[in-house]
Amino acid sequence: MKSFKQHLDAAKILAVTQGSWQGAQDILLDNVCEAAEANPGSIVFCEQERLVEAIKASPAGLIITNTLLAPVFSGRSLLIVDKPYFSFMSIVAMWLELENGSEIFSIHATAVIDPSARFEGEVSIGAFSVIGANTTLGKGVRIGSGCRIAENVSIGAGSRIHDNVCIYGETVIGKRCELHSGVVLGADGFGYLVVAGEQKKIPQVGKVVLDDDVEIGANSTIDRATLGSTVIGTGTKIDNLVQIGHNCLIGKHSVLCAQVGLAGSTTVGDYVYLAGQVGAAGHITIGSRSLVGAQSGIAGNLPENGKYFGTPAMEANLTKRIYVAQKHLPEMLREYQKRLKESKHD
Amino acid sequence: MKSFKQHLDAAKILAVTQGSWQGAQDILLDNVCEAAEANPGSIVFCEQERLVEAIKASPAGLIITNTLLAPVFSGRSLLIVDKPYFSFMSIVAMWLELENGSEIFSIHATAVIDPSARFEGEVSIGAFSVIGANTTLGKGVRIGSGCRIAENVSIGAGSRIHDNVCIYGETVIGKRCELHSGVVLGADGFGYLVVAGEQKKIPQVGKVVLDDDVEIGANSTIDRATLGSTVIGTGTKIDNLVQIGHNCLIGKHSVLCAQVGLAGSTTVGDYVYLAGQVGAAGHITIGSRSLVGAQSGIAGNLPENGKYFGTPAMEANLTKRIYVAQKHLPEMLREYQKRLKESKHD
Amino acid sequence: MKSFKQHLDAAKILAVTQGSWQGAQDILLDNVCEAAEANPGSIVFCEQERLVEAIKASPAGLIITNTLLAPVFSGRSLLIVDKPYFSFMSIVAMWLELENGSEIFSIHATAVIDPSARFEGEVSIGAFSVIGANTTLGKGVRIGSGCRIAENVSIGAGSRIHDNVCIYGETVIGKRCELHSGVVLGADGFGYLVVAGEQKKIPQVGKVVLDDDVEIGANSTIDRATLGSTVIGTGTKIDNLVQIGHNCLIGKHSVLCAQVGLAGSTTVGDYVYLAGQVGAAGHITIGSRSLVGAQSGIAGNLPENGKYFGTPAMEANLTKRIYVAQKHLPEMLREYQKRLKESKHD
Repeated sequence: MKSFKQHLDAAKILAVTQGSWQGAQDILLDNVCEAAEANPGSIVFCEQERLVEAIKASPAGLIITNTLLAPVFSGRSLLIVDKPYFSFMSIVAMWLELENGSEIFSIHATAVIDPSARFEGEVSIGAFSVIGANTTLGKGVRIGSGCRIAENVSIGAGSRIHDNVCIYGETVIGKRCELHSGVVLGADGFGYLVVAGEQKKIPQVGKVVLDDDVEIGANSTIDRATLGSTVIGTGTKIDNLVQIGHNCLIGKHSVLCAQVGLAGSTTVGDYVYLAGQVGAAGHITIGSRSLVGAQSGIAGNLPENGKYFGTPAMEANLTKRIYVAQKHLPEMLREYQKRLKESKHD
Repeated sequence: MKSFKQHLDAAKILAVTQGSWQGAQDILLDNVCEAAEANPGSIVFCEQERLVEAIKASPAGLIITNTLLAPVFSGRSLLIVDKPYFSFMSIVAMWLELENGSEIFSIHATAVIDPSARFEGEVSIGAFSVIGANTTLGKGVRIGSGCRIAENVSIGAGSRIHDNVCIYGETVIGKRCELHSGVVLGADGFGYLVVAGEQKKIPQVGKVVLDDDVEIGANSTIDRATLGSTVIGTGTKIDNLVQIGHNCLIGKHSVLCAQVGLAGSTTVGDYVYLAGQVGAAGHITIGSRSLVGAQSGIAGNLPENGKYFGTPAMEANLTKRIYVAQKHLPEMLREYQKRLKESKHD
Repeated sequence: MKSFKQHLDAAKILAVTQGSWQGAQDILLDNVCEAAEANPGSIVFCEQERLVEAIKASPAGLIITNTLLAPVFSGRSLLIVDKPYFSFMSIVAMWLELENGSEIFSIHATAVIDPSARFEGEVSIGAFSVIGANTTLGKGVRIGSGCRIAENVSIGAGSRIHDNVCIYGETVIGKRCELHSGVVLGADGFGYLVVAGEQKKIPQVGKVVLDDDVEIGANSTIDRATLGSTVIGTGTKIDNLVQIGHNCLIGKHSVLCAQVGLAGSTTVGDYVYLAGQVGAAGHITIGSRSLVGAQSGIAGNLPENGKYFGTPAMEANLTKRIYVAQKHLPEMLREYQKRLKESKHD
């Protein structure tokens, strides 16, 4: 159950959804949850028949459902909409924003802030966070506890940095970005040359740039460029434990699921979807709007708009047919070896 | 070498093992180690012949061995048992518990604890840790340095949270759990919808629930549910760098090795074993007591009690036979193409 | 752009490179960058024709190039060398060392340092870091903010520990090592035995040892040995999000790319290269100077000097030929099944 400090009534709810109201309107709602946890202050939703009984049995104050299912909930307060899950989530999103909007900005007394750091409006900084020299925080930036923001970093207005995030020097973060706990931005790219039998480090003096509205999941790592910038484009969303190598260029509104790994200098287009644990070689281009299936290994360029899958990643349907066919491979081998033997005896 | 502050003598050792003692009993032991590091205060064990010479040459004070190998160590203090490694480890476990039991609880002066946080007995909290509003710590909870425990969290008696762990709001942790450094519990699940060309975030307002005796390895991440709970069952052990997506339900006494990744809403039964780097698609069920080989990609439901392997994960023996057969695939292709050409010429 | 506090002139640059100077020598340089960002204080390099126009158009103060390309930059200050990229990077490395050398050592007032900790010369310790009992820091060690260095740890001279690194007790770190943010060294190895239906933990009382010149990427984890040591050899470089299980022994000057995972007791030789997302089973040996392709699954011993690839990892060329052949597998299956049917009808 997610409880909110601010209560919603029917009027506020109708203001953010296109639905029609049925039943009593004199209710005050203060939480969202699944049926099993519901109380009279709860909003729940129902768009699947298998959930009807549980929701009927619950004391939830408001049920968001569709015209098809509405009759089974007669006598209850209902919000009837086309897409119950979507409307439910829109209400939750609005509610969360309301709460955030009323959040008081504050800088914890223990934070260590370099005198040259600059704030462009009210910001929050949690306990034990460190803000380095010449770093700029935009209006409304919220930084959690235990964050390490090094020198010459810029964080755009409205961005939220959760706890224990480490941001190396020179990193540029756009507006309304969200970095979850444990993220590391700007650690050295991974480059060495063997000189006289030893791994000699190639200095990494570029930076990391996140455009606006980027979200990065817990414990993900994005390395600084060797020279120039590693760039994550506007609106791109990155899940937990993802690795982005130095000098990668990722486009807009792309989605990288958990544990994806991109080697250095990989270029990813816009609206690309990389499923979990996908790996990509360096110095290749993954075309815009391509979808790549889980655990795929991308070894070369992928044209735009395609669906890809497998290791090496190829047209997804081909990989699926290979997966079907490979189950017969042991018997095909047996047959092949039998024939081979026969032909030798001929 | 692991040294202990409390010394063990023959009586204490015999009290926790079923073995028989041979040789001098007037020894005082204060460490466990491998043969190369041993001194007269050391306990070592020997159940493999290849280690006999090194152990004979060492000054170790006590050798735990079996009846078969005991004669080669004549003249030494021996503890003779059926399973030397197991008995050795039982002694170490008992010794560690002795040390922990004598640990003094303390709350570091720098910790920032919300006045509404509640402790149900003695607890330890390390330097620079933050405990949020309405959070409850059970009796004997030990929290390391630099931890961020948000609001409305509950941590059961006897749990141990190592350093720099981040726990988001509303998380519920059972008794005797152990979270290693860098773990992040309760970050937002990864869900977006493209609306008007932009990735629109689906709010994530559920929580994470760990039942009793769960252990989670360093830098692993477990996301909060969209609604409801992401649940890890009693006694389940999770290794380092593992990713558990939102709304996953994991059963009891299962083992998830390093770098495993579960997409959202994956259900895992009891006594399941997922080897390293296994990935599982979302909205599927992995049956109880199933074993899944390393790097497997689980694309659909897996029945209980099976052994599975490969991408896509299937019956392990079939994958093993495919792996054997695929080595012949290039020559099978050559033969196939030769025949194809011949038949065209016919 | 990477700016430096100390300026370089022609004499200082010529002192570290073998090149010849052309054009004006009376320049003062204070940064390195790509052409697009250059100003009169910039050093850029050019060894590819496709970059010539951008560099010509830029106001960069010094261009490092080769004899072939030098004529197109006539009238500019040039450093002409055999390998422009290498010389450029050598200058950057020297410049970074100059800056580091002038760095003032300081211990932040908020750091919590056990009175028994010992410093063998000047060291830096950042805000909110914790140094445990009996821990030793060598001369010139630099520790960032929010680090947790437990008891009985030893860190060799010149090592650099970035922010929020966690080092468990007894860990030994050599000279000139570099650990990036979020690294966890020495968490418990992952070992359990099912006893009476429950996962019983095998105590992990060994340690982690890093030899000299080891670098470890952000959020990587290296577990302590069950007994004895998990060892990373001199000069070995480990990328981000890598997992090294308990009791692994890694040789010298090896390279482990991002998201590699080694199960327990894996032995890796010298000069081994493991590409991204490679996994290795435990209790096996990966021979010196072997190269293993991305996402490979190493299931058994790999002889020295080989190139390996695939799951299971085998001779790389064989895997490449299998990858080519598998594209034909669906049609081979069709043909096989057709023949099977025909032979039944015969």
